[in-house]
Amino acid sequence: MTAAADVKPGEAMRKRVVILGGGFAGINAATELAKLPVDVTIVDRRNYHLFQPLLYQIALAVLSPADIAQPIRSIVRDHRNIEVLMDEALSFDLAQRRIHLKTGVQLEYDYLIVATGSTHSYFGHDEWAKLAPGLKTVEDGIEIRRRVLLAFELAERQMMETGTHPPLNFVIIGGGPTGVELAGAISDIARLYMTRDFRHIDPSMAKILILEGSPKILGSYPADLQVKAGEQLTELGITFRTNAHVTDVQPGYVMIGDERVDAVVTLWAAGVQASPLGKLLGVETDRRGCVTVDGHLNPAGHPEIFICGDLAHVEQDGKQVPGVAQPAMQMGRYAAKRIGRLIGATSGSKDENFRYFDKGDMATIGRKAAVADIKWPFKAHWSGFPAWMTWLTVHIFFLIGFRNRFSVFRQWAITYLTFNDGVRLITGSQDLPGWDSQSKVAEEASSKSPLEAMILKP
Amino acid sequence: MTAAADVKPGEAMRKRVVILGGGFAGINAATELAKLPVDVTIVDRRNYHLFQPLLYQIALAVLSPADIAQPIRSIVRDHRNIEVLMDEALSFDLAQRRIHLKTGVQLEYDYLIVATGSTHSYFGHDEWAKLAPGLKTVEDGIEIRRRVLLAFELAERQMMETGTHPPLNFVIIGGGPTGVELAGAISDIARLYMTRDFRHIDPSMAKILILEGSPKILGSYPADLQVKAGEQLTELGITFRTNAHVTDVQPGYVMIGDERVDAVVTLWAAGVQASPLGKLLGVETDRRGCVTVDGHLNPAGHPEIFICGDLAHVEQDGKQVPGVAQPAMQMGRYAAKRIGRLIGATSGSKDENFRYFDKGDMATIGRKAAVADIKWPFKAHWSGFPAWMTWLTVHIFFLIGFRNRFSVFRQWAITYLTFNDGVRLITGSQDLPGWDSQSKVAEEASSKSPLEAMILKP
Repeated sequence: MTAAADVKPGEAMRKRVVILGGGFAGINAATELAKLPVDVTIVDRRNYHLFQPLLYQIALAVLSPADIAQPIRSIVRDHRNIEVLMDEALSFDLAQRRIHLKTGVQLEYDYLIVATGSTHSYFGHDEWAKLAPGLKTVEDGIEIRRRVLLAFELAERQMMETGTHPPLNFVIIGGGPTGVELAGAISDIARLYMTRDFRHIDPSMAKILILEGSPKILGSYPADLQVKAGEQLTELGITFRTNAHVTDVQPGYVMIGDERVDAVVTLWAAGVQASPLGKLLGVETDRRGCVTVDGHLNPAGHPEIFICGDLAHVEQDGKQVPGVAQPAMQMGRYAAKRIGRLIGATSGSKDENFRYFDKGDMATIGRKAAVADIKWPFKAHWSGFPAWMTWLTVHIFFLIGFRNRFSVFRQWAITYLTFNDGVRLITGSQDLPGWDSQSKVAEEASSKSPLEAMILKP
Repeated sequence: MTAAADVKPGEAMRKRVVILGGGFAGINAATELAKLPVDVTIVDRRNYHLFQPLLYQIALAVLSPADIAQPIRSIVRDHRNIEVLMDEALSFDLAQRRIHLKTGVQLEYDYLIVATGSTHSYFGHDEWAKLAPGLKTVEDGIEIRRRVLLAFELAERQMMETGTHPPLNFVIIGGGPTGVELAGAISDIARLYMTRDFRHIDPSMAKILILEGSPKILGSYPADLQVKAGEQLTELGITFRTNAHVTDVQPGYVMIGDERVDAVVTLWAAGVQASPLGKLLGVETDRRGCVTVDGHLNPAGHPEIFICGDLAHVEQDGKQVPGVAQPAMQMGRYAAKRIGRLIGATSGSKDENFRYFDKGDMATIGRKAAVADIKWPFKAHWSGFPAWMTWLTVHIFFLIGFRNRFSVFRQWAITYLTFNDGVRLITGSQDLPGWDSQSKVAEEASSKSPLEAMILKP
């Protein structure tokens, strides 16, 4: 099968490149390969590229999915040597350089870029997934939004019915950037955006708790920024506990050893594992399923295969390159450029290794604070409002598509200025796991004397 | 239970008004009641008000749900005498003036406004619902979008695999405004927005067919506009058949008597029925479940109950007032004003009957044509671009909330100018009912000679 529809007879010997995954690595590889005399097929289960760093803003009702997602076909529509296939790899025949896709299509390749990223890891407790959703897909984002908003609705209803409601405890498992960003955003919603929305409950009474298993929140950040982040969280009324190992997740509560922590909504921001494709390839992987690669991003013995993004285990200066957007983009571009060199279409040394150029890291904490560990074009540790402005600028700049940039900027401006936003829609089911049992506890408590009620509280 | 949290002791005798349904009638009643010394509770299953006339633009990926939906709490947040409850009425005790809600809350009322609208009617064939989704909710809109976009994706994949694909027939059952608008929008997507997106299929080969059971499309419009609409549909390559009674809906096809019509996607725009609440009230209803009301919008014997919007069967000048947004808004405002007069808070005659003031009707056909039956401030029958401009202006004007107005206007401008849009996201399942059987037919056809294939085609 030819890879693109408009291949001319004389070009039959063009090399075929297959990219698995339309994330940061895949899209950056594709737009770089667009300039080369190769035929490219992008395969993704989804029909869109997602700007994951802003996914938590869908979850917390600031942005709409369409603001941060762009159909892959739209991104590459003007590159006639790129085709897009909505499908999934099922198995590989590395000797024949052939991929079997889920729906029966077989793709042959001369070069293969595998960039299927990572997913949540519940550390062997997959049964927790339904009780504590993580944040990787648009559907995850909408589900988290549904749960958070529904908790307030159910509390209002319960209050009207019984005069009491379960405490609005939001528990976030994991104190990395995602956990901190989710916590800040829930705090904004509860304390700022919804204050005038309810008549019977006070949304600002919501309690937000981050449970981090390690001794530090934002473990990958410099110590001074960890301290700043902690201060900023506290200012927003967010509690965080470190060295808190969650041992069980149940409807309505989580356990830390013998201690029960009530939760109307539990969110998962703790662990990630590599996409299963690494293992399917039959090459060497680390304990999280990431593929161990050499300096050319190739797994051992396969110079025609490039592993990019979260799926790649790349060591640099004795540390593992982190699974975030920047290195993924750089890996994608590196793989594409290297293919250009290998086929003689691009100048440059064939020996050049991949090297991650780290411009720094940022995490927001609510609507006007952030921490920024800036490494380029100068070195600095920023926190508070300047860090937040930097975060905002960088994220708008990197969004793909004019429409998205404009739309996100506008939405942020409106939200920031008016404290209002119109995307707080609850779609889907109207149940919350564990609410009924929580309500019963609250109801029983309310039928006792205040003292009894206090004692009853876990 | 008091209806609002901030009722002062001296106001204990304030009348309680319960509004069931946060659609056009309910919201207009509420904002009118906000000015009166009454306590209002709005009950809706959803937490948002939906601007239904633009729902088809979600379905066809032009707008996002948040563009045309607004949380009810946001709309009424500054009216302290209005509270909102996300719940559903389960039964009524009209003698005690009490409503039992699904989740256990009981509401007492002095006045009750029932405005729970209508839903699809499959004319006794509820099993068709999954095969031919209708368009009433945000979830419906997203589901239709999913199916339409997925059909093109599956065709591209099928083409790569087998060199052929089932014909891209989109069948719309029902030739009223919704059917015509859906057809026009699918035609836009196929012929204009996706032309450069695929490498193996030609999206503009999609065939769009409207099946209307009655002798005319847009049956409620004047004859000259029906003709104009027909011409405009034909210009967009849309086929319509009148007197075409669909007798069966199956995965991959529909039947008109003995005739089989293939369909990769079937949509339902044929019939509506009233919300079941009319019957639950135990008052007189018509065959579609609408409540028969008098000139005050009261069912017989219940001057304290107002039926508004699609749920009301109102006769005026020998014709039934149609179930669209305008009369719903007017009924909601009428009911609120009448309550004001009944409690002596508003001047005006208590005898004044509801009278629908009809400003006209409009339906769009694709991206720059429409028909408009204008009745106010002057009488005119417009079609084509002027009608479309009118449609656009009126719809932006009536959207609730600055954010939505601005957002929809911007999105339309971008879509109109660039032929591009970024909301073509496929979320949820990746299956299409009937695709496999269709594919098999196409595959078999392709393995035969062209003549055999032609004979094989149903």
